[in-house]
Amino acid sequence: MLPRPSSVRVTGGVFRLDAATTLHAPPSLDGVAGWLRSTLGPPSGCWLPPSSSDEGDAAVRLELDESFAPEAYRLEVTPSQVRVTGGDAAGVFYGLQTLRQLLPPALFRSSRTTSGPWEVPAGIVTDAPRFGWRGCLLDVARHFLPVADVRRFIDLLAMHKLNVLHLHLTDDQGWRIEVPGWPRLTTVGAIRRESMVGARRHERYDGRPHGGYYSADDLREIVAYAADRHVRVVPEVDLPGHVGAVLAAYPSLGAATEEREVRTAWGISPHVLAVSDEALGFCRDVLDAVCDIFPDRYVHIGGDECPPDEWVASPQARQRAERLGLSDVDQLRGWFASQLAEHLAIRGRTAVCWDEVVSAGAPPGATIAAWRGPDETAAAARAGLDVVAMPNRNVYLDYHQSSGADEPIPVGSLLTLAGAYDLQPVPPGLTADEAARIIGVQAAIWTEHMDSARAIDYMAFPRLCAVAEVAWSGPGLGFADFAGRLRVHQARLLAAGVEFRPERGPLPWQTRPDARGWVRD
Amino acid sequence: MLPRPSSVRVTGGVFRLDAATTLHAPPSLDGVAGWLRSTLGPPSGCWLPPSSSDEGDAAVRLELDESFAPEAYRLEVTPSQVRVTGGDAAGVFYGLQTLRQLLPPALFRSSRTTSGPWEVPAGIVTDAPRFGWRGCLLDVARHFLPVADVRRFIDLLAMHKLNVLHLHLTDDQGWRIEVPGWPRLTTVGAIRRESMVGARRHERYDGRPHGGYYSADDLREIVAYAADRHVRVVPEVDLPGHVGAVLAAYPSLGAATEEREVRTAWGISPHVLAVSDEALGFCRDVLDAVCDIFPDRYVHIGGDECPPDEWVASPQARQRAERLGLSDVDQLRGWFASQLAEHLAIRGRTAVCWDEVVSAGAPPGATIAAWRGPDETAAAARAGLDVVAMPNRNVYLDYHQSSGADEPIPVGSLLTLAGAYDLQPVPPGLTADEAARIIGVQAAIWTEHMDSARAIDYMAFPRLCAVAEVAWSGPGLGFADFAGRLRVHQARLLAAGVEFRPERGPLPWQTRPDARGWVRD
Repeated sequence: MLPRPSSVRVTGGVFRLDAATTLHAPPSLDGVAGWLRSTLGPPSGCWLPPSSSDEGDAAVRLELDESFAPEAYRLEVTPSQVRVTGGDAAGVFYGLQTLRQLLPPALFRSSRTTSGPWEVPAGIVTDAPRFGWRGCLLDVARHFLPVADVRRFIDLLAMHKLNVLHLHLTDDQGWRIEVPGWPRLTTVGAIRRESMVGARRHERYDGRPHGGYYSADDLREIVAYAADRHVRVVPEVDLPGHVGAVLAAYPSLGAATEEREVRTAWGISPHVLAVSDEALGFCRDVLDAVCDIFPDRYVHIGGDECPPDEWVASPQARQRAERLGLSDVDQLRGWFASQLAEHLAIRGRTAVCWDEVVSAGAPPGATIAAWRGPDETAAAARAGLDVVAMPNRNVYLDYHQSSGADEPIPVGSLLTLAGAYDLQPVPPGLTADEAARIIGVQAAIWTEHMDSARAIDYMAFPRLCAVAEVAWSGPGLGFADFAGRLRVHQARLLAAGVEFRPERGPLPWQTRPDARGWVRD
Repeated sequence: MLPRPSSVRVTGGVFRLDAATTLHAPPSLDGVAGWLRSTLGPPSGCWLPPSSSDEGDAAVRLELDESFAPEAYRLEVTPSQVRVTGGDAAGVFYGLQTLRQLLPPALFRSSRTTSGPWEVPAGIVTDAPRFGWRGCLLDVARHFLPVADVRRFIDLLAMHKLNVLHLHLTDDQGWRIEVPGWPRLTTVGAIRRESMVGARRHERYDGRPHGGYYSADDLREIVAYAADRHVRVVPEVDLPGHVGAVLAAYPSLGAATEEREVRTAWGISPHVLAVSDEALGFCRDVLDAVCDIFPDRYVHIGGDECPPDEWVASPQARQRAERLGLSDVDQLRGWFASQLAEHLAIRGRTAVCWDEVVSAGAPPGATIAAWRGPDETAAAARAGLDVVAMPNRNVYLDYHQSSGADEPIPVGSLLTLAGAYDLQPVPPGLTADEAARIIGVQAAIWTEHMDSARAIDYMAFPRLCAVAEVAWSGPGLGFADFAGRLRVHQARLLAAGVEFRPERGPLPWQTRPDARGWVRD
C-alpha cells in the first residue's frame, strides 16, 4: 500500500466483492458512498447496488466514529464484510482509497474491464496522517491546463491521500483567473505571443501563441470536484512581483512605465507593482474575486522573488517607506503583504506567503510556504508562524530526475526519487512548540517545461508518490521499503493512465532533444 | 435542444429537481440510472438518492417500452414527475441526454457548482434517430491521444447522441495498438522521431519525438467506457497501405526493402505491404488481436489510398494476380481485402473498407465507408453494399473553418459550419432499396494538425454538432434554425469544457502563426 498505513494486520481469508455485495452507509456519508459507487462501479458497475438489501449479505459498511482523529480511519476486512470507520468523511474516504489498493489494479480504470468477483485479503488497517496539510502546487500560469486535466490531477492527488491543491494562478507568463472590473487581465494577460523552448540561456522560442484562463464557474467546478474528493484548493495570486501579465494588461499599475507584453521568456520579470493606492486597490479587487470563488480558509498572496530594483528604487517606494516610518525600504514587502493579509482577514481568510516575507516582517498570523529550504522553514517556525515545508531540493518536481543525457529538459538541481523520499519537513533543532508550527508539506510542479498533462505526469510521478508518503506516513521503513511498494503501485498508476517516469529512464517520446536544459549544482 | 428532437410539445409549468427527488428504474436500467447519478449528481450530489422512497414524491422514472424503436424515447415532464420511456436502454439514455439539455448548462459540469433546485419546463418530447450509425472517426495515429482524452471525447459524442467512435489506430505516422507476437509494432512503430509542423509543402519539422500506444487493457477500458454511454467502438487498422509504422518495425513485411523509419512527414508513404503469405499472416494476427479486444460487430480494415507503384509493380504482385486469374493487378486490392474480410467472418465480424475497394471488387458483405463523396456513396449502395456516408467536403473536420487569415493551419477545402450542416448522406437518384443501404453517417477528425485535445476541440466543435444533428434529426428546419439553437448550446459546451471555435474566429491562443497550411480548392 502507498502511502504506507500506520498499521496493517493480515488475518487470513478473503472478502469477495461481486454483484450481490451491498453498500451500507449513513446519510452523512452520502458523498463518500457516491464517490465509491462512481469510482468502483460506474456506470453499469455490477456491485454496490443502491438498495439496502438483506443485512445478512456480504456488505461494505461505512461508518463514523467521533473518537477517531480527523482523517484517521480503520479498515476491517473479514470474509463476510468490509467495514470502514472514519473520524470524519475524509477518514472514511481514505479508508476506501486503501481498500481500492487491496483490489486488482484494473479497478483504477474509469470503467470496468472485468466483471469480478474481486478478492480483498482479510485484515485490519489502522491509519492516520502525519500532517493535516499534504499538498501539491500546480502552476497553471506558465502553461494553462484545461479543467479536465486539473480534475484528473485532483483524482491523482486523492489517490495518494494528498488533500491540498495549491493552484498557482498567476505569474509573469500568464494570468488565469477572471476578475470583475479588470477584463484585460484575461483578454490580454491570459495570452502569451510565444513560449520559450528549453532553458532561458538558450534563448529559443516556438513562435506559437499560448493562453487560456478559467472562468469563475470553471474554478467553482474545480473546487467542487476537489471537495468531493476531500481535496482543498488553495488559490495563489502572486503579488507584488511575478506580475508581468498584469502589467501587460494594466501598465499603470507598474512601478515603471516602459512598453510591455506578457512575458515569453522563462525567469522573473524585473517589473513589479507600484507601491501605489491604485495598485493596492487592484490587489484588493483580485482578492475579493478570489474569496468569492474559493471557500478555503487559506489564500496564497505570493511575496516571493520581488526584484528589488523597481520596488526599492522608485521614488514612490521611498516616499511610502518614509511615511510609514520604515527604516529599510525592503520592509515595504512585509508592509505590502500585511495590507493584503488584513484585507483577507476581513473575509475570514488566512494569508499564505512565500518565505521571503519573513525577513521583511511577515503579516501577523500568516502561514509561510517555505520553499528555500530547512533554514527558512526553521526561521518561520521560530518566528511563531505556521509553516508548510516545500524545500525545493526535495519537492520541486520540475528539477531533473536523473543525470541521464536523455532526461527531458533538465533544470535546477538533481532531484531523484530517493531525493524526494529524503524530504525532512521538520528541520532539526526546533523545540516541540516550534516543530508543531510545521503544519504540512507540499510538492511543487512548476510548468515552464511541461506543456501538457503528459509532460506533467512524467515529472510528477513517481516522485509525488514519495512526497505523499512522507506527508502521510513519515519516513517509516526507509527508501528500499518504499521503492518495493512503488513497484507494485506502478500497476495502479498504469491503470489510472499515469505516464510516469519509468525506472530505467524516459520512453523515447518522453525525451526532449528539441529543448535543451540547464543544470545547476 | 440539439440535435433537434422529432417532436416537442410544451405543456406549461415546471418540474423542480431537488434533494428530495427520487429515482425509480427497473434493474434492467441500472446502467443508465448509474450514469444519471454519476453525471447529474457526483459524488456528493444531493438529488436522486439511491433509496426507493415514497411513491408520492416528485420523481424521475425510467422505463422500457418494447413497442418503441431502438434508441427511440419519449420524455414526459409534468410538475410532479419526469418520465423517460425508451425502446431500449439506449433510448432511455438519449431521453436523459435531452432532459439534461432542459436543465441549466451548469449541469454539464463534472461537479455541482450550485445546489439547486433546478427547474425543468413541463412538456412532452418524442424522438428517434434518423440513422442507426452516427459516428465520428478519431485519428489517434497521427497524434496519440491519452486514454483520459479519449474518454472525454466519448462523453462529448454521447452528449450529441452520436453512437459510434471509429478509432483510427494505425497509419504511416504511428501504430497505437499492442499485438501479441509483434512487439516491435509498439517499441518501434509507436514512436516518431519528430513531426512535421504545418502543411507538407513547407517541409518544417519540430525536432520533438512523439509517440504512445494503448495497451489491450487501455482499449478495453475505452470500449467499456463507451459502452456505458451507448457508444460502440469500431476499430480501424489501415491495410495494406498507410503502413509506414509497420514497415519501420518489420521491414520484411514490405513490398520493397529500403531503409525506413516511422514517417515524420504528413501525407502517404509510398511503401505498402507485400502481397506475401508473411504479410497476410501478419494481418490475420493483427485482426485476431483486434477481435480479442473489440467486441463490436464491425472492424475497419482500411483499403484506402494504397500507392500503386509498389503494390502493382512488384513481381510478387504480378505472380499472385496471375495465379489468382485476376485480369487486372489492381484487383489484388479487392482480393486482399476479401482475405481479411473472410478472416473476420470466422470471428463473426463484418469488415468495413474505405470506398476505394468498391471498384477493385469489395469483399462480399463488407460495409463501405464512403469518404470521397456522394458518387462513391451511390456506387457502393448500387453495388448492394451497406454504406456509411463520410463525404469529406462535409465531414472532414481537419479542413479549415473559414477563409480568415488567422484560421489555424488551414488545409483541404473550406468547410464552414453551414457546409457541415449541408451534409446530405443520401445522394439523389437512388432507389428506395439502394437508399436503405446507407446505414449511417460519420464525421472524421484527422489529427495531423491537431496535437492536443484542445486543438481537437477547436476543429471538432461546433461542426460536429451539425453532423450530429443531420445524423440524428435530418436537415429539418434549415441552417438558421440550427444556428439559433447552437447559440444556446454553446453554454452547454462551455460548461462541458469544450474549447470550440468562436463564431467570430479563433481566440489568440487558438491561432498557429508558427505552422503554415495549404488550402486546396
